[in-house]
Parts: sequence; C-alpha cells; structure tokens
Amino acid sequence: MHPALFLSLASDGPAKIPLAMLIVFVSAKLMAELFERINQPGIVGEIIAGILIGPSVLNFIQPSEFLTALSDLGAMFLLFRVGLEVRSSELMKVGGVATLVACCGVIVPFLMGWGILLLWGEPSNEAIFVGASMVATSVGITAQVLSAKGLLHAVSSKIILAAAVIDDVLGLLVLAVVSSLTHGSLNIPALALTALLAVGFTVIVAKWGTHAMGKVVPHVDQKLRVGEAQFALAMSLLFALSLAAVYIGVAAIVGAFLAGLALAESTGQRVRDLAHGVTELLVPFFLAGIGLHVSLAAFSNPRNAMLAVIILIAAIVSKFIGCGLGAWGLGKAEALRVGVGMIPRGEVGMVVAQI
Amino acid sequence: MHPALFLSLASDGPAKIPLAMLIVFVSAKLMAELFERINQPGIVGEIIAGILIGPSVLNFIQPSEFLTALSDLGAMFLLFRVGLEVRSSELMKVGGVATLVACCGVIVPFLMGWGILLLWGEPSNEAIFVGASMVATSVGITAQVLSAKGLLHAVSSKIILAAAVIDDVLGLLVLAVVSSLTHGSLNIPALALTALLAVGFTVIVAKWGTHAMGKVVPHVDQKLRVGEAQFALAMSLLFALSLAAVYIGVAAIVGAFLAGLALAESTGQRVRDLAHGVTELLVPFFLAGIGLHVSLAAFSNPRNAMLAVIILIAAIVSKFIGCGLGAWGLGKAEALRVGVGMIPRGEVGMVVAQI
Repeated sequence: MHPALFLSLASDGPAKIPLAMLIVFVSAKLMAELFERINQPGIVGEIIAGILIGPSVLNFIQPSEFLTALSDLGAMFLLFRVGLEVRSSELMKVGGVATLVACCGVIVPFLMGWGILLLWGEPSNEAIFVGASMVATSVGITAQVLSAKGLLHAVSSKIILAAAVIDDVLGLLVLAVVSSLTHGSLNIPALALTALLAVGFTVIVAKWGTHAMGKVVPHVDQKLRVGEAQFALAMSLLFALSLAAVYIGVAAIVGAFLAGLALAESTGQRVRDLAHGVTELLVPFFLAGIGLHVSLAAFSNPRNAMLAVIILIAAIVSKFIGCGLGAWGLGKAEALRVGVGMIPRGEVGMVVAQI
Repeated sequence: MHPALFLSLASDGPAKIPLAMLIVFVSAKLMAELFERINQPGIVGEIIAGILIGPSVLNFIQPSEFLTALSDLGAMFLLFRVGLEVRSSELMKVGGVATLVACCGVIVPFLMGWGILLLWGEPSNEAIFVGASMVATSVGITAQVLSAKGLLHAVSSKIILAAAVIDDVLGLLVLAVVSSLTHGSLNIPALALTALLAVGFTVIVAKWGTHAMGKVVPHVDQKLRVGEAQFALAMSLLFALSLAAVYIGVAAIVGAFLAGLALAESTGQRVRDLAHGVTELLVPFFLAGIGLHVSLAAFSNPRNAMLAVIILIAAIVSKFIGCGLGAWGLGKAEALRVGVGMIPRGEVGMVVAQI
C-alpha cells in the first residue's frame, strides 16, 4: 500500500491533528538536520521538507485550514520574537537609511520585473502585476536567518528589519496603485488615507508603545491573580496589534513585530522563554507551509519554466542591487550585508509568479 | 451596529486568525482573573468565558476547525506537561488502587445514569447511552486543577492520574460494548483485541519509555545540529505517541500523557520551560473550547432542563461515591480526596447529555 493512501485514509477523525503535527514537524526537523550537516542553512531544509511532503512530490499532506493557520501563527510568533530582541530607539536611529533601502528595494525590483515581462512579450497589465509581486515581502525568512545566526544586534540587521517593515507599507501602496490602475481609475484620497493610517500606526506603536509597556508590565505580576500574567499580557498585545495591523491594511506580522518591539525593554526572561517555546514549535509549520504551497507544475512547460527561473534570478539580483544602493552611504561592506539580507524577500515573488 | 455583526463581517481573510486568537485568549484570561478575585477556580472562569462568547450567548465566535484543533492541541500539551511532572515508577506503585478506583468510577456512574433514565421513562437504548456517557473522561480538567494547585506530587494525585488513564481504556471498552449491544451483536474477539492493544501500549510505554528516553535524551544535544534538539525530540515523541494512541483506540491525550511520562526523568528544565510556554498559550483554547460547544438550548424545555440537572448531579455524586469507594482502603481522608479529584470527569457527561 502506498503510504500516502494510508495517510489519507486516516486523515479524518481524531487522528487528523496529531498526524498533521507529526508529519510536518518531524519532516521539517529532519531536513533541517540534514541541511545543517552538509553546511547549508537549516531553514532552506525546512522549506524543502514542505515541498517534499506536499502535493507536488510525495503528497503525504495537503494544505488545510488548520495548517495554514499554524503557518500564519508561526510567522507572527517569529516576528514577535525578533521584535523582542530589538530596541525601538535603535530602530528609530536607522530610520532614514532604512526608508531609503526600502524605497530602492521596491523601485528596482518593480521596474526589473515589469521590464522583463514586457521584453518577453507579455501584455502590459501582466507585466505590472509581476513587477508588483516582486516587491512582496518575506520578512519572516530574513528574520529567521538573522535570529538563527545571532546577528540581530548588528547595525545592518536593524536596517534590514526597519526596511522590511517600511517595505510592507510600501508594498501595500504599490498593490493598491496597481489594482486601481488595472481597474482604470486611481482613487487618490482613499490611497492617501490608507498610507496615512499604516504609517501612523507603525510610528505610534514604535515610538510610544515601549513607553506605555514600560509603565504597565512591571506591575502586572503583582496586580493580577492569574498565573503567568506577564505572558498573558504579552500574548494579548501580540494578537491585538496583529489584528489592528490587518484592519489598517498591512500584514499581521507587522503588528506582531511591533508588539515585540513595544515589550522589548520591559519584559523579563521568563516571558521570552515561554514565547520562545511557542516559536520553536510553530516556525517549522511556517517554513514547511511555504513549501507546501509551492507548485512545481509551472516548471512542466519549458517556456514557463525558463520565465520562472529568469524572474527568480531577477528578483534576487534586483533586491540585492536596490537595497545595497539604498545603504551605499554606510560604506561598501555594510551595503553588501544589507543587500544580501534583503534577498530572501524576493522568494515569495517566485511563488506568486508561479501562480 | 451589534458587535457580533462587525466581528462576523471581519471573520474571513487575513483578520480571521488574529481575531479568533484575541477573542478566545483575552476573554478566557479576563474571566479567569475575575473568578480568581472572587476566590473561585480560574479554570471554571475560562470555561464560562467560552460559553459567553459562543453561539449560545453573545455569539462573538463560532466553533471552527481551527479552534477545535487548538483546543485538542491544548489538551495534549496539558497532559504532556502533567506527564512531565510524574515519575512512572511512582505511578506503577499506585497501579492496584488506581485500577480499583477506575473500575468503581466506571461501574457506579454507568448504573446510576442508566437507572435514572429508566425511572424517567426513557427507552432502554437511550438509558444505556446516557449511562455510558457518564463514564466519559475529562482528565484534562482534573489535571489542570491538580497542576494549578501544585498538588501533582501528592499520593492521591498519582492515584487520580493513573485511574484517569485506566478509565480512558475502560471507557473505550464500555463504548464499544454499548455500541455493539445496540447493534444487536457483540464481537468478543475484536473487543478483546482492542482492550489488549490499549493495555499493552499503555503498560509498555509507561514501563520502558522512561528507560529508553534515559538512554537517548542526554546525547541528543551533542549529536544533533538543529537548535533546541531536545525540545524537537520531545515534540516529536508527543505527536508520535498521541497518534499511536488514536490508532490503538484510546484518546490522543493518553498518548500525550505517556510521552510526558517517558521524558519526565531524562529531560531538563529548558524543555519544560519551552513546553510550558506552548501549554500556557493553548490551555485557554482547550477550556474555552469546552464552553464554546456547550449548548444552552437543551435548558429551554423545562422537562429536559430538569433531567439535565438531575443527570449532572448524578454524574458528580456517582463519580465521587464510585472513586471514593475504590480508594477506601487508603483511609477516609485519602478516599475523600480521590473522590473529589475524580468529580470533574463527569462534566463532559453533562455536555453529551445535552446533545
């Protein structure tokens, strides 16, 4: 009997949850171990594990509402943990450079994606769509790499993180402009309102969140009677800001990052350890979840496959050039580091391009 | 605008996950805090929070695949944590008394539920079904109470936990017998095989699991290159034994408990802290999830409401008498404690009776 048949037979009822947890978690960790042993990054192994067990290859498991939700939660906890490691005051200091990096990192990939598609002979609308998709964020992967390598405290890491958050706001605007353009009308006031809300939310939380939490958090454990009150508060803030981010129009992970940032200076080691446990459990679901959604079907047609490869290379090169250019003022070494750090963000563009 | 309308409008798309997390987690923690302040157990507050936000009262949120899965995971992590606190050798010592407690705790509630329904004039099949439902386990709640009160190391707690695991196996058999009886035929060999598998799985893991893990766990951190390798191993064992338990026919939480038990003597504080974080996050979803599934509709008909109240009282009294009787040999004080400790387990019976 083919194992996939056995698994799909058992994939309903009470076995469903432990089965899905076991397959995704164990395969991700095994591939991470394998990749670490051949001196490759473990997170690439975890993404490839998702491709292997997913519908494209072994078909052990299909994307489900539950797995997608765990993947989203994993990304939120990852950014929350990263936020916990960063002081918002330090982030503010690199704000100028980060904005420049983010802008160049949006403009260069967009123009390159758009240009390639036009040269390939595709219609103008499609070219704009692919250009916009190359702007898309994958800040989760960057954050995981920085965190795994213990690089979160380097200056270039702070620029990368700040640029990633700004990039998300810019990406939102680009998408809004593009979808307005393809529908023929550009609603400037609505766009301006969205932009204002997104920027306002980010700046207010980054600037005053730390201050507010500094006043609240130290008293929580004495004032409240529930166990692990600080952790409960941290989780509530995480979910509340993630939700607020979505309502405003940016990604939930931006809210999660801001929640971590707001708590970074006031929260103790206990909350960090507890949140770290959740992150360790859920990040494999985030990484393998990316792999699960990768469809290798696009590569079956040689012309499409070639286009996908070209776009992938363009996404990497354009992010590197754009972001490196933005950080040029810091010297060649730092600019190189920032450019490399922003590369993984083009990877989601690849997935979009396939679909 | 009624808030429920606002929430249901926003309940799809990217807001869905953070919204569900926020509503359930915050309302559970708020009610827990409220109950602690009026000197009532916080977990009752968390269950009531689920009833309040659920379809019966405020209708802020409906049970979904995602929330049910989080609730199941919460129960698994809860039992895993409880298992981590208990030495299997100590559990084995109380095995005899625990078996007696479990047997009496199955027989007395079954007879009482069956008797009440017959006296009420219901058909015999229904009486047997309600009797069987009063046997149903709610070991998660018992475990949470014991853990919250710091009582996991008392002798009576160990008897309660061991009896709860045995009870789950017995409950499985009762359900199998009942469903065979109502279908008219009793398949003795199949029943015997199920019982043998369930007992064998439990005994083997409880007896040799600790030994096996004692040989593996201390070397994991040196041998493997992935980060937090001990935690990854613990999670893999948790999901694997939960899945094995389901395949054999007992509840996933029994497997989770056995996984904790197997790791209790070999695993360090780091893994406990990380697993504790996941448990702290997920237990509110388990408790509020119970509340979410409580339907108050059964209480709208006075005759049904009265029957539900009688069954609830009978469930409490019969568990207390049955389990206290089983532990009578330990003296009056211990028997009383065991009897009280087993009471929450009748509570699921109430939910079943309503449906």
